[in-house]
Amino acid sequence: MNIDLAVTWTEAQHVDLTGRAVVVIDVLRATSTIVAAFHSGARAVIPVDTVEAARAMASRLERGSAVLGGEREGLQIDGFQLGNSPLDYTPEAVAGKTVILTTTNGTRALLAARKADHVVAASLANVSAAAERLHNRDQDVTVICAGTEGRLSLDDLHCGGMLISRLLEPGVVRELSDGARAATEWFVSNAGNAEHVLRSCFHGQRLAALGFAQDIAFCFQIDTTAVVPVWNGHALVLDEVPRAPASAQEATGEGADRV
Amino acid sequence: MNIDLAVTWTEAQHVDLTGRAVVVIDVLRATSTIVAAFHSGARAVIPVDTVEAARAMASRLERGSAVLGGEREGLQIDGFQLGNSPLDYTPEAVAGKTVILTTTNGTRALLAARKADHVVAASLANVSAAAERLHNRDQDVTVICAGTEGRLSLDDLHCGGMLISRLLEPGVVRELSDGARAATEWFVSNAGNAEHVLRSCFHGQRLAALGFAQDIAFCFQIDTTAVVPVWNGHALVLDEVPRAPASAQEATGEGADRV
Repeated sequence: MNIDLAVTWTEAQHVDLTGRAVVVIDVLRATSTIVAAFHSGARAVIPVDTVEAARAMASRLERGSAVLGGEREGLQIDGFQLGNSPLDYTPEAVAGKTVILTTTNGTRALLAARKADHVVAASLANVSAAAERLHNRDQDVTVICAGTEGRLSLDDLHCGGMLISRLLEPGVVRELSDGARAATEWFVSNAGNAEHVLRSCFHGQRLAALGFAQDIAFCFQIDTTAVVPVWNGHALVLDEVPRAPASAQEATGEGADRV
Repeated sequence: MNIDLAVTWTEAQHVDLTGRAVVVIDVLRATSTIVAAFHSGARAVIPVDTVEAARAMASRLERGSAVLGGEREGLQIDGFQLGNSPLDYTPEAVAGKTVILTTTNGTRALLAARKADHVVAASLANVSAAAERLHNRDQDVTVICAGTEGRLSLDDLHCGGMLISRLLEPGVVRELSDGARAATEWFVSNAGNAEHVLRSCFHGQRLAALGFAQDIAFCFQIDTTAVVPVWNGHALVLDEVPRAPASAQEATGEGADRV
């Protein structure tokens, strides 16, 4: 298995994804939110790139079966039921429903990944489950970090490096790309410090200034779920029954930030 | 002083460079070649984006005053006197002359930086001299790593991290961006290993396969010159008499790779 990593979704546009497994990461906050939605029982998440496309899609779906979620400049969109806060995605809000989601970075990264053979969404909440799934496929992997408005974002780099480190353990990796090496080096040097990384990075500071400090506290928790959203050609879905993690409580928080 | 770093020149297009000092880095090989040209007595280096523009510009300059240099896919361009190998840029080839240079990544990064208040070119060969110049200006700094065809390249990240570490020493830095932190972390973890980084990165492996192993051996030498090419609005020039480094021989090679 070879592992590549793009630090932004725009960098990923320079990558041939044919025949590869892709994992999309936007820790603050899109993939954390998507993973939370599935953990709360959402049936599907459809990423769309514009607010208008999201509204049009919702109007075509059966009334009550879909909820609109997302953000622009970090804030909930006018007329949408949910923002981009993972805390919004409770079982009451999303169980059994299709979430139509549009965000500034993460959903665009997902859309950029669609040409790949296999696409999953990962955050710190499901990083080990996502790594296990990729390991079982034994296919070359490209990690696409969403980044923040075209810039490298340390929340995503940290999670990408953590995921790669999980894949290194079984000894099946032949080669890491330059970006994969940089992410792994970052993670190894900052293992155990996910909370600090998320609070101190540019995007974390901006979210805190917008009043979303609780979201950060949610997003730095590690391996709290085993759901792995998979792209089925139309939407993200769960294609197998998620199992509860063996020890979700013990695996939560920065203490579980294994190298 | 705040320091930002973009890992590719395409990422740099998302950055407002107004009022900032910018340092452009393309270790393999454009800025190593530019620095070598000035060390050999070149009068100016004009970066241009296309082969056609380079030929047109050469035809407008006085016969014998200009030389054409550059590469496409790593190789010297048909009809050009010089390639993109720093070893080509001897005093015999370039002393007193204007070099018109077009390369795949580095010259484009230089052109992307033109809106900045102050632009310098750096490689491992002049990293401490470039850092000293930026330190003396005491202005916010953006490091633009050229990258390789839109992708993060560890040769540039290593040099960018080394340059930032030189600026950290005097204690004038207030804030590092996410990219600057990632580069510094990479460099600190790999200090003393510039040769390994350059030989093992994607671009280094490709250059070695093309027969340019000697270029890599040239490019991983650190602080061999004090020239700092500066953009004057039309071309890169030296705006002050370069001083010989205090101890060029001792400062050469990975042993001098200080944290």
